[in-house]
Amino acid sequence: MTKSAAILVIGDEILSGRTQDTNSGHIARVLGALGIDLREIRVVGDVEAEIVAALNALRGTWDLVFTTGGIGPTHDDITADAVARAFGVDIGYHPEAYRMLEARYQPGEFNDARKRMARIPHGAALIANPVSVAPGFHIANVYVMAGVPMVMRAMLEEIVPQLPRGAPSIAVTIEAAVPEGTVAEGLAAIQKAEKDVAIGSYPFYRDSGQGSPALGVQLVARGRDADAVERTAAAIEAMLRDLGAAPQRIKQVVPGTHA
Amino acid sequence: MTKSAAILVIGDEILSGRTQDTNSGHIARVLGALGIDLREIRVVGDVEAEIVAALNALRGTWDLVFTTGGIGPTHDDITADAVARAFGVDIGYHPEAYRMLEARYQPGEFNDARKRMARIPHGAALIANPVSVAPGFHIANVYVMAGVPMVMRAMLEEIVPQLPRGAPSIAVTIEAAVPEGTVAEGLAAIQKAEKDVAIGSYPFYRDSGQGSPALGVQLVARGRDADAVERTAAAIEAMLRDLGAAPQRIKQVVPGTHA
Repeated sequence: MTKSAAILVIGDEILSGRTQDTNSGHIARVLGALGIDLREIRVVGDVEAEIVAALNALRGTWDLVFTTGGIGPTHDDITADAVARAFGVDIGYHPEAYRMLEARYQPGEFNDARKRMARIPHGAALIANPVSVAPGFHIANVYVMAGVPMVMRAMLEEIVPQLPRGAPSIAVTIEAAVPEGTVAEGLAAIQKAEKDVAIGSYPFYRDSGQGSPALGVQLVARGRDADAVERTAAAIEAMLRDLGAAPQRIKQVVPGTHA
Repeated sequence: MTKSAAILVIGDEILSGRTQDTNSGHIARVLGALGIDLREIRVVGDVEAEIVAALNALRGTWDLVFTTGGIGPTHDDITADAVARAFGVDIGYHPEAYRMLEARYQPGEFNDARKRMARIPHGAALIANPVSVAPGFHIANVYVMAGVPMVMRAMLEEIVPQLPRGAPSIAVTIEAAVPEGTVAEGLAAIQKAEKDVAIGSYPFYRDSGQGSPALGVQLVARGRDADAVERTAAAIEAMLRDLGAAPQRIKQVVPGTHA
């Protein structure tokens, strides 16, 4: 049974446009390789009530929820408290987290702000942080990770062995220098014949034409049945050739990799 | 009265990790310059029921909603139908959209798929598309735009003159080569004294140290009251100097620009 997932990105810096969220794309690709269906992403600011509401909506709707951001030492890091409130559990220093953090700092440096990073909702299990020690945590179907990409990625690697596996999706991308509107009808017919494959159509306009078309479309056939995906891809290529185009397979995502 | 806003990003390609959503960041910065508060972003796939549910939640909660994606000619472009369903209105060819699209194509090229791009929910006003003709549309507090970044940006420029204005936020960013945990307590005290300024703290780890610190923190003071923001920034700089650090202002967002 394929599991569904959502990501909750927490932080004013995403909503202000200061920071480009790249964590979601990384998590998306890792989940895809594991055969987990990412179904929704939400971004909310550093506002406890909004974090609580979004987390409760997502954890009630999807099998797994991954959060990023808001677990540092500063006043704007309120994710752990919000998660505790969402679950209706207490929060306090986690003995193991406290010990790890205490051991990390020189005497006198383990101040109250840094101790905040040991505050973990009751009943949660720690997620190791091999980069900067301060842990994430896991409670029920929710995985709480850091927002700094290097730290988030390391935490996700720690989580991966615990996550459920499904049949990974296979995606074949075919590019051609034709306008999207010329392929739409043929594509719809292929889609109708292949119910278990999702066909996506993504037009592009490129500034420079260094050997590659300046206008064209990328067509993606994605699904869990390798034969059906290949049959769909071949049908798309045949359709493009019938239109006089020269289709190119530009990327093939191999299941089981994190690429 | 400051208006609130949300973005609804529509497309399987974001949830699969195939495409990095950069539209949200661009919209965020434009809204910030207009003095509109972006409060939430959601990403959903090409599933009508999910688009409808997300759109109805967002348009009921926030003053303005901006959607991106799903308005092209192919079978996976279902945004216009989903918006019509969310509002409970009919959808059909919009005469002006139909004429514009018909004029764009050579005789025989204006096929059924391309005609799909003229299907607009009843009661909606068109948003011009100076890049590739096929329009977006605006219905009540919802603005429906393309997903291709070049087209989305052009549509947003068309919309900007119609949008409400508020007092834009001013953000001052101060960087220092100190770990976040050493500034957290001083920062919390400054935040406590400045209720109308939001202080964000963003640690970073950089691979290479070409003249810039490999580990440090960026502190952002953001608010609508220029004096309060400047006072907060000066307090942060003084606090950093007291810690023996050399604070640097690295970016000052000037209100009214789209930078």
